[in-house]
Amino acid sequence: MVLENIPTEKDILQATENITPYTHRTPVFTSTQLNELFDTRLYFKCENLQKVGAFKMRGASNALTYLTKEERKKGVATHSSGNHAQALALSAKLFKVPAYIVMPENAPAVKVEAVKKYGAKIIFCPPTLKDRELYLEKVIRDTGATFVPPYNDYHIIAGQATAAKELLEDTTDLKYILAPVGGGGLLAGTALSAHYFGHDISVLGTEPEGADDAYRSFLSQKLIPQEDPNTIADGLRTSVGKLNFPIIQQYVQEILTVSDTEIVEAMKLIFQYLKLVVEPSAAVPLAAFIKNKEMFNHEKVGIILSGGNVDLAKLPF
Amino acid sequence: MVLENIPTEKDILQATENITPYTHRTPVFTSTQLNELFDTRLYFKCENLQKVGAFKMRGASNALTYLTKEERKKGVATHSSGNHAQALALSAKLFKVPAYIVMPENAPAVKVEAVKKYGAKIIFCPPTLKDRELYLEKVIRDTGATFVPPYNDYHIIAGQATAAKELLEDTTDLKYILAPVGGGGLLAGTALSAHYFGHDISVLGTEPEGADDAYRSFLSQKLIPQEDPNTIADGLRTSVGKLNFPIIQQYVQEILTVSDTEIVEAMKLIFQYLKLVVEPSAAVPLAAFIKNKEMFNHEKVGIILSGGNVDLAKLPF
Repeated sequence: MVLENIPTEKDILQATENITPYTHRTPVFTSTQLNELFDTRLYFKCENLQKVGAFKMRGASNALTYLTKEERKKGVATHSSGNHAQALALSAKLFKVPAYIVMPENAPAVKVEAVKKYGAKIIFCPPTLKDRELYLEKVIRDTGATFVPPYNDYHIIAGQATAAKELLEDTTDLKYILAPVGGGGLLAGTALSAHYFGHDISVLGTEPEGADDAYRSFLSQKLIPQEDPNTIADGLRTSVGKLNFPIIQQYVQEILTVSDTEIVEAMKLIFQYLKLVVEPSAAVPLAAFIKNKEMFNHEKVGIILSGGNVDLAKLPF
Repeated sequence: MVLENIPTEKDILQATENITPYTHRTPVFTSTQLNELFDTRLYFKCENLQKVGAFKMRGASNALTYLTKEERKKGVATHSSGNHAQALALSAKLFKVPAYIVMPENAPAVKVEAVKKYGAKIIFCPPTLKDRELYLEKVIRDTGATFVPPYNDYHIIAGQATAAKELLEDTTDLKYILAPVGGGGLLAGTALSAHYFGHDISVLGTEPEGADDAYRSFLSQKLIPQEDPNTIADGLRTSVGKLNFPIIQQYVQEILTVSDTEIVEAMKLIFQYLKLVVEPSAAVPLAAFIKNKEMFNHEKVGIILSGGNVDLAKLPF
């Protein structure tokens, strides 16, 4: 099946150019000790060191590049209490456009502050998805702002794809890339970059058992939304997007799931051996690697450390 | 006063060459958010990302370069329960020489394991400084091993000096460098590198209030040993060495002290904004910067993040 309109090789090259002024080219870390521990060769793409502490900055800044002059005047809007909110707020600040972020009234103060700091206008809503969507609609009606979705968008996917593209440029002979999957922006982008810029690389999605809609959707070949997610990996509780799923079906080899216990164990290993602060979602690929070590056959494995925004007062170990 | 026999510019250049095969050239990190928070420009030299997770690898591997063929056969010895033990153990492994590490019998299992992993022979002793020295003497008598001290040694100082040399090469126009001071190997080395390779740079030592022997010694112009240290910064509880102190007196501008509360606060900021895992000792320079912010007058400040070996189950925040 040929997927129409999905990001092309040229779109991702263009995204790389678009986001360069607004993002870091993050480093790739390795750990001799971790490699010896698991008799492997792991290459970690450190998106926890990205601006706002997460890969989301890539997609958001790419999306903003495509606004018309008229749209820029009216600004951008989204609903999110997570990394996309911060990424959109900072991108809007850098592009000098207004940003409106709908956040649930029970969002942690630290997350509200982070968004406020970038100068975005925050609109609080009751903490249900329906209310978030209703409030967002109203904001857009009132302001004329453009909705920038967190993942279900080709410009977002092309932006997130640049992380894997850089990882491929900074390593040689990777055979696998593992990325976490929540809405599927990062995973779809990773798979496209591996397809366009890699050579015979298998991309695997990795997901918490308590929010395994991508796994179930992938197996049943139809999109099943996530209901009542229950996982420590707060960045991965959302359902896979409609635009993301067909790309994942076509270009991702497999989805692996892990328990919260396995996620916490992997998170601790990353703190201990890489000396990096990561959020639980970012530890999901390493957890999946450890659980399925034998399938990687000592080949070189790339892992996307998606973000580092974790409540330090509530570390799970 | 001209200090005789202290490491020369040439010694430090030679140390750089000596240690290159055994160490990482660690990156220099910055954080826009942290800089905005304190209206400054901070450059962090990430020795927490060094092999064994601390700058100690530089000194230890430099010291081992100078062993004769005969000495190599008999091996090296030290007493330490900290980063120097791991650094000497790994260096010895890389140089293929035996290593004997005297450790107190109440040393944390995780530290014992770390040393054992590198193939060193561990000799347990009662947990007093006197016993550590007695046991070390016996080991040296029995094996003929060469004592590699943790800081009171010019090869060690020259090795630790390479961190600041790299920091200077990777930045421009630094006006200050802040380093923690325990035994004084890192601080003396930093001051020498700033003197030889920098241009009009002030080097400041930073120390916990609960182990402020460097501060008191610096003021009184005579070496006062630290008794009953009481600080969370476990790497800085030792007294300044006899060889280190004159170098510090001559080349360091000032010693600043901070409380444990200030250390923990700075440690949390490093986790939060740099997304780096550091041990309490490594947070002391940032704590001292924050406490004395106005004295740095918005100039560029280099900070040596000395290490990242912290018990993750007992983080102080």
